[in-house]
Amino acid sequence: MSTTENEVAVAEGTSSKHARLVYFFGDGKAEGNGDMKDVLGGKGAGLAEMTNAGVPVPPGFTITTAVCRHYHANDSTLPTEFAAQQDAALARLEASIGKTLGDASEPLLVSVRSGAKFSMPGMMDTILNLGLNDHSVVGLANKTGNARFAWDCYRRFIQMFSSVVMELEKSEFEDLIEALKHKRKVHLDTDLTAEDLQTLVADFKRHVRKRKNRDFPQDQRHQLAMARDAVFRSWNNDRAIYYRKQNGIPDDIGTAVNVQAMVFGNMGSTSGTGVGFTRNPSTGENHFYGEYLTDAQGEDVVAGVRTPLPIAQLEQEMPSVFEQLHTITKKLEMHYRDIQDFEFTIQEGKLYLLQTRNGKRTAQAAVRIAVDMVKEGLITEQEAVLRVDASSLDQLLHPRLDPKAKTHVIAKGLSASPGAAVGVAVFDADTAAELGNAKKKVILVRKETTPDDIHGMDAAQGILTATGGMTSHAAVVARGMGKPCVSGASGIHVDDKARRMTVGNTVVKEGDWITIDGSAGTVMLGAVPTIDAEISGEFEAFMAIADKYRRLKVRSNSDIPRDAIKAREFGGEGIGLCRTEHMFFAEDRLPYVVQMIMAAPMVKTRKEQLEAREKAFEALVSSPPVEGKAGKAAHKKAVATHKKGIAAIKVELAVLKKDLATQEKSYKTALAKLLPFQRKDFYGLFKAMSGYPVTIRTLDPPLHEFLPKREELMVDIARFKQATVADKKDMAKRYRMTVAQLKNGMPELLRRVEDLHEFNPMLGHRGCRLGITYPEITEMQARAIFEAACEITAKGGTVVPEVMIPLVGTVTELENQANIVRRVAEEVIAKKGVKLEYMVGTMIEVPRAAITSERIAGVAEFFSFGTNDLTQMTYGFSRDDAGKFLPEYVDKKILAGDPFVSIDQDGVGALMAMAVKGGRAARPKIKLGICGEHGGDPQSVEFCHRIGLDYVSCSPFRVPIARLAAAQAAVRGSAKESDRR
Amino acid sequence: MSTTENEVAVAEGTSSKHARLVYFFGDGKAEGNGDMKDVLGGKGAGLAEMTNAGVPVPPGFTITTAVCRHYHANDSTLPTEFAAQQDAALARLEASIGKTLGDASEPLLVSVRSGAKFSMPGMMDTILNLGLNDHSVVGLANKTGNARFAWDCYRRFIQMFSSVVMELEKSEFEDLIEALKHKRKVHLDTDLTAEDLQTLVADFKRHVRKRKNRDFPQDQRHQLAMARDAVFRSWNNDRAIYYRKQNGIPDDIGTAVNVQAMVFGNMGSTSGTGVGFTRNPSTGENHFYGEYLTDAQGEDVVAGVRTPLPIAQLEQEMPSVFEQLHTITKKLEMHYRDIQDFEFTIQEGKLYLLQTRNGKRTAQAAVRIAVDMVKEGLITEQEAVLRVDASSLDQLLHPRLDPKAKTHVIAKGLSASPGAAVGVAVFDADTAAELGNAKKKVILVRKETTPDDIHGMDAAQGILTATGGMTSHAAVVARGMGKPCVSGASGIHVDDKARRMTVGNTVVKEGDWITIDGSAGTVMLGAVPTIDAEISGEFEAFMAIADKYRRLKVRSNSDIPRDAIKAREFGGEGIGLCRTEHMFFAEDRLPYVVQMIMAAPMVKTRKEQLEAREKAFEALVSSPPVEGKAGKAAHKKAVATHKKGIAAIKVELAVLKKDLATQEKSYKTALAKLLPFQRKDFYGLFKAMSGYPVTIRTLDPPLHEFLPKREELMVDIARFKQATVADKKDMAKRYRMTVAQLKNGMPELLRRVEDLHEFNPMLGHRGCRLGITYPEITEMQARAIFEAACEITAKGGTVVPEVMIPLVGTVTELENQANIVRRVAEEVIAKKGVKLEYMVGTMIEVPRAAITSERIAGVAEFFSFGTNDLTQMTYGFSRDDAGKFLPEYVDKKILAGDPFVSIDQDGVGALMAMAVKGGRAARPKIKLGICGEHGGDPQSVEFCHRIGLDYVSCSPFRVPIARLAAAQAAVRGSAKESDRR
Repeated sequence: MSTTENEVAVAEGTSSKHARLVYFFGDGKAEGNGDMKDVLGGKGAGLAEMTNAGVPVPPGFTITTAVCRHYHANDSTLPTEFAAQQDAALARLEASIGKTLGDASEPLLVSVRSGAKFSMPGMMDTILNLGLNDHSVVGLANKTGNARFAWDCYRRFIQMFSSVVMELEKSEFEDLIEALKHKRKVHLDTDLTAEDLQTLVADFKRHVRKRKNRDFPQDQRHQLAMARDAVFRSWNNDRAIYYRKQNGIPDDIGTAVNVQAMVFGNMGSTSGTGVGFTRNPSTGENHFYGEYLTDAQGEDVVAGVRTPLPIAQLEQEMPSVFEQLHTITKKLEMHYRDIQDFEFTIQEGKLYLLQTRNGKRTAQAAVRIAVDMVKEGLITEQEAVLRVDASSLDQLLHPRLDPKAKTHVIAKGLSASPGAAVGVAVFDADTAAELGNAKKKVILVRKETTPDDIHGMDAAQGILTATGGMTSHAAVVARGMGKPCVSGASGIHVDDKARRMTVGNTVVKEGDWITIDGSAGTVMLGAVPTIDAEISGEFEAFMAIADKYRRLKVRSNSDIPRDAIKAREFGGEGIGLCRTEHMFFAEDRLPYVVQMIMAAPMVKTRKEQLEAREKAFEALVSSPPVEGKAGKAAHKKAVATHKKGIAAIKVELAVLKKDLATQEKSYKTALAKLLPFQRKDFYGLFKAMSGYPVTIRTLDPPLHEFLPKREELMVDIARFKQATVADKKDMAKRYRMTVAQLKNGMPELLRRVEDLHEFNPMLGHRGCRLGITYPEITEMQARAIFEAACEITAKGGTVVPEVMIPLVGTVTELENQANIVRRVAEEVIAKKGVKLEYMVGTMIEVPRAAITSERIAGVAEFFSFGTNDLTQMTYGFSRDDAGKFLPEYVDKKILAGDPFVSIDQDGVGALMAMAVKGGRAARPKIKLGICGEHGGDPQSVEFCHRIGLDYVSCSPFRVPIARLAAAQAAVRGSAKESDRR
Repeated sequence: MSTTENEVAVAEGTSSKHARLVYFFGDGKAEGNGDMKDVLGGKGAGLAEMTNAGVPVPPGFTITTAVCRHYHANDSTLPTEFAAQQDAALARLEASIGKTLGDASEPLLVSVRSGAKFSMPGMMDTILNLGLNDHSVVGLANKTGNARFAWDCYRRFIQMFSSVVMELEKSEFEDLIEALKHKRKVHLDTDLTAEDLQTLVADFKRHVRKRKNRDFPQDQRHQLAMARDAVFRSWNNDRAIYYRKQNGIPDDIGTAVNVQAMVFGNMGSTSGTGVGFTRNPSTGENHFYGEYLTDAQGEDVVAGVRTPLPIAQLEQEMPSVFEQLHTITKKLEMHYRDIQDFEFTIQEGKLYLLQTRNGKRTAQAAVRIAVDMVKEGLITEQEAVLRVDASSLDQLLHPRLDPKAKTHVIAKGLSASPGAAVGVAVFDADTAAELGNAKKKVILVRKETTPDDIHGMDAAQGILTATGGMTSHAAVVARGMGKPCVSGASGIHVDDKARRMTVGNTVVKEGDWITIDGSAGTVMLGAVPTIDAEISGEFEAFMAIADKYRRLKVRSNSDIPRDAIKAREFGGEGIGLCRTEHMFFAEDRLPYVVQMIMAAPMVKTRKEQLEAREKAFEALVSSPPVEGKAGKAAHKKAVATHKKGIAAIKVELAVLKKDLATQEKSYKTALAKLLPFQRKDFYGLFKAMSGYPVTIRTLDPPLHEFLPKREELMVDIARFKQATVADKKDMAKRYRMTVAQLKNGMPELLRRVEDLHEFNPMLGHRGCRLGITYPEITEMQARAIFEAACEITAKGGTVVPEVMIPLVGTVTELENQANIVRRVAEEVIAKKGVKLEYMVGTMIEVPRAAITSERIAGVAEFFSFGTNDLTQMTYGFSRDDAGKFLPEYVDKKILAGDPFVSIDQDGVGALMAMAVKGGRAARPKIKLGICGEHGGDPQSVEFCHRIGLDYVSCSPFRVPIARLAAAQAAVRGSAKESDRR
C-alpha cells in the first residue's frame, strides 16, 4: 500500500495504525518531499523540498490533507493516532528551534497556514504569532527588548485568532482601535505606544468574553488545536468553494495544515530581514540583487518607513551570513533552474529563508536571462524558448512610459496597439496630417476612425478613439502602422466641431498635450516622459533560438511597401494579407475610386435597360398590324402608329446606347487610371518581399466606405444655397469637384450613397460579392498583380503571388472569381513571355466556407482563415458593436475573454479544424494560414500550430511575438508528444 | 448476356451478330417495353409501352442508343448488321400503315425524333414529314384533296431538313418567304396560296443547290439515313452538352432515334384531330373532357383559327371512334394511375393516339382527383399524398386573380405572401389604419415596413414594399397575418412625403386603385377582379389522409390569440414561436416599453457610478492626512480640506442615490405596467392552444426598434423652435409627451437613440444579450408566462409552456437566462399552488450554438432552429440587404435559389444536422423543432423530416402546406426505407 493509498484509507475512516499523518521538516531534513503535493499540499511539499535541498527554512511540520478529509467526513473529529503524531512533531520542532510552546520567558511562536494541492491564494485562513498569551508576551518583550513589538504581536494574534477561529467580526476590533486612538487623540496605529497596545489587548479580551461568553484561550496547545481545525473548516468557506468551482479544483481533496516556527529579524543587531533576486529582474544582468534592514521585521522593508540597505553591505556587516545567503540562493537558482525572488530573516545571527519563488522580470530581463542560462548550460534551448512571455515582447518594440514618471490618468480604454505616445490633441485627420507633416507631434483623437482618416493616422504619434473595440478600424490600422492606440475610451466625449474632448469635468482642447499608453489603455494629461524601446543583442540571439524550434511560418499583414520592409526587419517571411483597398484611399487615387463607384452600377443598369428595350423593339417589329375586319382605313392607321412606335423606340435605344457608352467610358477610364497605381504598389511589395510569398486580397469593403458620409452630404446640400464663396470652395475641395459641379454633383453623390446604404454592411455587398457584380474590378486588380509580378520576374526577381478571394461562402463564388484571375494571369504571363508561378485561394471567414471546405478546396489552392469575420459570424457579434455587451459578458463570466483577441477554440476553432480537415481531404497539399488579427495572439498562434496550419500572418510589429509563440507551441507540442511515448 | 450488355458491346465496336439494334412497335405489339429506357430512350420506351397496352399509336421503330454510341465511337459509321434490321423494320412499318416510303401516289411520311434516356426537351433535333419529294407531294395533295396542305408540308420539310441535316441557316429560308410575301403583297404566311407555296419550294431547292452545290435529296431512304445521322450528331451539339452538364446527365449514353409514321386528320370528313383530359383538370370532376375538329390538323385546334367542338359531339358524329377513344383513355388512366392529357388524330376513320401524359391540374383538381382515385381504388393513400404539390395549397387558402381578367402589370417584386388583394394605395400606416378601420379597402405601400407599421398592415388588404426580401419584416408579418404581400418591388419609387409612388413614367397617388398578386409578385393598376378561395370538402378529406402518414408535428408561429385560433383551424398542433416583442408595439403598451428602455440603462449607469463613488469615498475616509514634516498649520489645513472633500462626496452620493431610486422606480413601474398586458396575451394564447404546447420566445429585437427613428427626431428637434402650436401638438402626440415635455424630452430621446445605434444591428445587442444585460425584463416576461399558465391550469385547462431563449451562442448565456426563468417559474408555481409542467430551451440560430450544441443541450430541454438568422450568419448575408446581389447570384447560378426561401442543405443544413446529433448525444429525448420561415417551405420540411426533427412551425396560412409536405416526406422516406430492404 503506497503512502497516498494509506492516506485515503484514513480519510475514509478505515485508518491504518501505521499511516503517517504529520510530516516534520527542519534541521536540514524533511520527512516528506517535493513530489508529495497530494499529501502535503503545495506549500508543505515546497517546504519539504527546500529543507531537503539544505535551505534553512524555519522548521515545522505539515498535517496531511488526509486529516482534513477525515475531519470533514467524521463529524469534525481527527484520526485516533493523530494526537500522538502531532505531539511528536511539536517536540521535534521545539527541540530544533530551542524554544518551547507556552514557555513564558522564551516562547515558541508558530504560524498556522493552509496549503492545498492546488494554489488557492487568499481563499483559506492563516494565523500568525500563535503561542502568545498573557505570560509569553512578556517573555517576548524581554527577549526582543521591544515591548511595543511584543504587545503589537499579541493584539494582532488575538484579532486574527478571534476572527478566524472564533468567528467574531474583524471590524468590531477595528472599532476598539479607533476608539482608543480617539481617546489618545492620535491618528495612526503607529502612534499607539506599548502601553496603549497593552490596554488594547485588555479591551480585546473583554470584547471576546462579552461576545463569546468565554475567555480568550490562554493554553497554547489548545490555541494550536483550535487554529488547525479552523483551517480545516476554511476549506469549505464560500470563497473557497466558489474559487474551486471557478478553477475546476475538486471539492473532496482537502487542505493540509502547515505549522511553522516564527522567526524574528528584530531581535537586535545580529538580526535582520531582507528580500532579493539572484539576478537583476529589470535588466537580466547576472548579479546578486536585493536589500535588507538590520533589527527589523519583514514588513519594515516593504513599508518604506526605514530605507533598506543594498544587499552588498550585508557582506561587510555579516560576511558569513552573506556568504551563506549567496550560496543558498545560487543553489536555489540551480535547483529551480530560474531566477529566484527570495525573502530571508536573520534571527540572532542565524539565517532563515522564508520564501523563494521564480522571480518576476521585465521582458528585457526575461530575454537576457533566457539567453544567459542557455550559455551557462543551466537550461536547454527549448526551456529558454518557454521562459519569455511572447506577449511581453511588445515592450521591447515600442517606446513606453518612463516608469518613474508621475501620470494623471483621465480615461481608460482598450489596449488597442501597444506603446506610449505623446503629442498635442487634434480632432480631425487633415489637421493631424498638416501638423504632423510640419514635424509637430500630435495625437489624433476621434470618436471612431474611418478609412478617410488614414493620412491623419499616418502623421500622428498615436491614435485615441472613444468607441470601437480591439479590432476596430483604428486598432487594426494602428497595429499595422506600429503606432500606439487606445480605442473605445468610452469615458471620452469627442466634439470634433468644437475641436475638443471632455472627460467628466476635464476639457482637452486642440493643441493641449496628452499622452496615451497603448499597452495599458490609459489616457493622460500633459506630456509624460517616455523611454525608447531597447532592442538588445540578446533579443536577436533569443529570436534565433526560438526560430530553430518553430514549425509555423510567420508572415505579416502589410498593405504598402514601407510596412513590408518593416515586416522583413522583424523577421516576416512573406505577406499573408495585403488589403488592396487600403491603397484606394490615397489622395491621388480616391477620385478614380469614386468615379469607378459612380459609373459601375450605371453601366449595369443601362445594359439591363437596353436589353429590355431591345426585346420590346424586336417584339414590335415582328408583330406588324394585321388587316382584320375593321377595314382598310383602320389598318392604315394602325400601320402608321406602328411605324411611329418603332421610330420612338429607336430614339430611346440611341439615347440609352449613348449613355451606356459614356458610363462605360467613365468606368473603364477610372479602372485604367487605377491600374498603374495598383501595379506600382504591388511591385513595391513584391520587391520588398523578394523570394517570399505575397498574398493579395481582392477588393473587400462595401463601396460606400469610399464615398462621403450620408449625413455630411445632406447637411452640405442643405447648406449649399446659403453658402459663401469660401464655403463652396471648401465643399468643392472636399468633394473633389469644381464649384460649378457641386449643385448637381452632391445630390447625385447622395443618391449613390443612399443606393449603397445597407442595414448590416458587415453582412452586405462586399468581398467577392463585389467582384461578382463588378468583374471588371477583379480583372483590373488581377492585371495589376500579374503585370507587377512579371516585371519583377523579368528583372530576375522571385515572386509567387497568391491571389486571395475574400468572403467566399460557396465554391461557385470562388469559381467565378478564380476564373477571372486565372484568365487574366495566363493572358499577362503569355504576353510578357515570362515564367511565373502563382496561386489562387480563398479566405475562410464565412461559416459556410468552413462547413463546405472540402468542395471549396477543389478550386482553392490555399485557405487563409479570416478569423475576425469568422468570429463575427460564428457568434453573431458585430465587432463594431459588441463593445456594448462584451465587457459585461466577461464580467459575468459568460465569456472567458474577448473572442476578437484570442480565438474561441470551441466554436470558431471547431470550424477552423473542420476546414483544415475538409481542405486537406480534397487537396492534401493545400496551403493553410491565418490572416485575422488573431495571427499575432500567442494563444491563438498555439492553436494554429496545433490544428496544423502552415503559417500565421499578423501586423509587422507583432511578427516577433508570433515567431516566439510559434516556437513555444512547437516546443510544448513535442514535449507532449514525448509524454505520450 | 442481357440486352443492355449486348448493346454496350455494340457501342464498343465488339458487336455480337445477334444484337437487336432496331425495335419495331405497331399493330398492338412492340418488340421493346416500357422498362427499356437505357436501350430505347424515354420516348421509345414510352411508345413501346403504349403499343403493348393496346393504345393505337402510329406505328414505327426505335433505333437504339447503342447505335448512337457506335456512331460516335467509330467515325460516324454504323454497326454492320444495322442496315438489315432497319430495312426489316421499315418494311413492317409500311405494311402496317399500308403505305410505302417513296410511293408517289400514297406516300408513307414519317417523323424522325431523338429520345435519350433522360428527357432533354428541345435540346436535340426533330424532322417531320420525311418522305416527301417532288413526286410524292403531288400524291399527298391528291390523296388529301388539299394541295395547299401538301405543298406547305413539303416546304416545311425542306426547311427543317435543310437546317437540321444540311446545316443551312433557317433565317435564309425565312428571307425567301418574306421576299415572296412582299412580291405577292401579303402579310401572313397563311395568305400564300398553294401555287405560291409551290413557287417557294422551287425557291428553297434553288437556294439549297446554291449553298450546298448539290440538289435537295429526292431519295426517301437517303433522306431517312441523313436525318437519322443528324439526330445522332445533335447529341453533341453545344446546347445538348451544356444541358447535360447543368442537369448531371452523363455524356456517354447517347440518344435513340424514333421513326414513326405520320398520320393526318385533314383527309376529309372521316378524319379529325383533338385534345382531351380523362377528368376535368380545373375542378377535378371525373368526366371525359376535351375538344376536337374534323378535317383538321393538330395545330388548328391550338391556333384558334377554327372553333373546336366539345368532345361530347364526337359521340354523335363518330360513335365508334368516340367509344374507342373513351375506352382507351380510361385504360390509359388505369395504366398510368393518373389523369391523362392526350392528343389524338382520326385518319380516315382510324383513331391514333399521338401523345398521352399525366395531366397538369389546378390545386383544387389535384386534391379532388387524389381523393377520388383513392375511393376508386386506383391509387393508394400514400400515392394520393404525393399527387398534390404542397406549395400549390396556397391557391386554395387565398383569394386569387380572376384568370379571365385583363391586367396591366406595372412592376414585379417577390412573391412574399400569397393571394391577390385590391385596394387604394396609401403610403403610411396611420392613414391605412384610419381608412381600413372605416371599412375602406387599402393597399399599404411602403419603401419598407417596420414594427411601427403593424397597425396599418393589420388594416390593409395587402402590403407592397419597394425593398426587402422574402424574409423582410413586411413578408414575415404579412405571411403571419395571411395577407397578400409583394416585397422588394425595386422598380417602384415610394415618396411617402408626397404620398405617391412612381414606376417609370406611371404615377400612383394616394387613393388610386391598385391590385397586387402576392402569389406571382406582380403589381397592377386598377382594381382587378378576384375570386375567393374555394375550400372544398375534398380538401378536408385529403388533409385527413395526409395526416395519417405524417410523423412531424406542425405548429404555427403566432403572436396573438387571433392568429392562434386561425392556426388551430388550419390544423396547427401548438405554437412553435410566439414573438413576445410583437405584443410590445400595441398603442397601449408602447409608452411603457419606451419608459422601460429609457430607464433600464440609467439604472445600470447610476449603479456603476454609485459604486465607483462609494469606493472613492471609502478611500478618502480611510486615508486621513498624516502629520508630516510640514508642521501643524499645514496639517490642520489638510484635515480641513479632507473634511470638505468628504462632505462634497457625501452630497454627490446622496444625489446619485436619489436619481438611482427615481430611475429604478421608473424602470420597475414600466415593467409592472407591462406585466399584466403580457400575462393577458399569454393567457389568450394558452387558451386558444389548450392541450397543445406553446413556445414563447423572450424579447429578441434590439431596443432601438421601439424608439423613434434618429433622423426623424433630429428633424423634429430642429423644427421645434419654429414650430406652430399645431405642429407641437402633433409632435407631442407622436412622442406621447405633453407639449411642455417636448423641449427636453426629444433631445433626451435622441441621446438614447444614439446610444443604442449600432453599425450592424443584426449582430448587435439583441436576443438573450438583452436579457443578460437587463435580467428584470426576462424576469417580468417569465412571471407573465407562468402566472398565465397557472391561471389556465387552475381553471382546469392544460398547458405546457416552453420558454425559448433567443440568439444563444454559448451555454453560459443560456444558463444565465434559464436560471432566471426557472427561478421565477418555481416561485410562481409555488405561490399559485398548482401543478405545472414547463420546459426551458433555446433557439439554434447562431452558428456557434450548432457547433457547441452538445454542451448547450446540457441546459436546454428543447432546440428550435431559427433558420432565418442561422442562414444570415452561415452565409454572412443580411436578409435586409441581400436583395442587392441575391437575384444576380441566382441568375449567374452561383446559388441555385434564395437560401432564405428553401434551406441551404449543404451549409445551413449541415449545421442543423450537427446540432441534432450534438443535442441528442447530450439529451436523448431533447425536443427538436424549427421556427424559421423555412418551416412552411415543402423542400425544407422534407429536410427537417430527414434529419429527424420533431416538429416544424410556420405561419398559420402555411400550416396545411407544412402538414402535406411532412406527410410527403414521410411517404417518400418509407418508400426509400422499403427500397433499401
